[in-house]
Amino acid sequence: MTNRLNDVDIEAVAGLAGHITETPEAAQTTWSADVRWDGGFRSEATIREFQPTLSDEPVGLGGTDTAPNPVEQLLAALGNCLAVGYAANATARGIAINDLRIRLDGDLNLESFLGVAPGHAGFNDIRATVDIDSTADRETLEALHRHVLETSPVGHTLKASVPVNVQLSTPATV
Amino acid sequence: MTNRLNDVDIEAVAGLAGHITETPEAAQTTWSADVRWDGGFRSEATIREFQPTLSDEPVGLGGTDTAPNPVEQLLAALGNCLAVGYAANATARGIAINDLRIRLDGDLNLESFLGVAPGHAGFNDIRATVDIDSTADRETLEALHRHVLETSPVGHTLKASVPVNVQLSTPATV
Repeated sequence: MTNRLNDVDIEAVAGLAGHITETPEAAQTTWSADVRWDGGFRSEATIREFQPTLSDEPVGLGGTDTAPNPVEQLLAALGNCLAVGYAANATARGIAINDLRIRLDGDLNLESFLGVAPGHAGFNDIRATVDIDSTADRETLEALHRHVLETSPVGHTLKASVPVNVQLSTPATV
Repeated sequence: MTNRLNDVDIEAVAGLAGHITETPEAAQTTWSADVRWDGGFRSEATIREFQPTLSDEPVGLGGTDTAPNPVEQLLAALGNCLAVGYAANATARGIAINDLRIRLDGDLNLESFLGVAPGHAGFNDIRATVDIDSTADRETLEALHRHVLETSPVGHTLKASVPVNVQLSTPATV
């Protein structure tokens, strides 16, 4: 029988941290995705064995509005990452979570993407509000919150400047 | 009858750029996502009226492996964004794309997320390889490639340091 809190296997997570402590090279991971363009502004991303996830743009941006667009997907990735962070660290601290919701908003100026003006094409600002339903007191939840922000992989990727190297594949010599 | 290339409505996209040029305030957009924790390391993100997209972690990281994890979703968002960039700018330049595939890989050290060591928890490095099947010559494709990288919203968000402000909601006063 496993010892669970928040439907997280406490020993498994603690065991993973112990394993990484003993063999630091196991901490170095590589993650991947394969994207295929589907015509128009539609594309699909395949990750491991999972069904492809679809992407499109709203009609107002020239798409066919069949799926969330890439910048919305980025906000979703941040929210999902924060959710894992709360679940993992609340469990490690013995805090039971009844419910957890995260609202994310990001401001983006389209001028650069549309070629109207040069400049930063990405989000200028990303905001999130976390609602936790827990019997833990406010101070305990605030300490949890601070720790989650200090250790969020997607949060740190966005807050830091990350090298992004995109190569055009060399065509095969005929 | 609309004038289409790459299944993109050329006039609609050109019209959008014209509209933004005339009314720059229309370029300022806000995008959103709502994430709900589903127990364990599972969560789902709802964007506009679309079906929620699921998130989980592999078993080796304490999850139940029912969906891609957040850092994989981030790579997918980048790839989908680059695909829109290629489709939009190829169309504007009169370049027909037959096929477009993008492979993305990112390196991430788990020590910070697992609390084993402090430091950067995000991707250290993101790499992508773009395969375009097009009758355009190499020089034309390389110019397209450079323009896409200069104007990618998700690419710029990752390459730049973006303010991410995550607030713990104030509980209602009883």
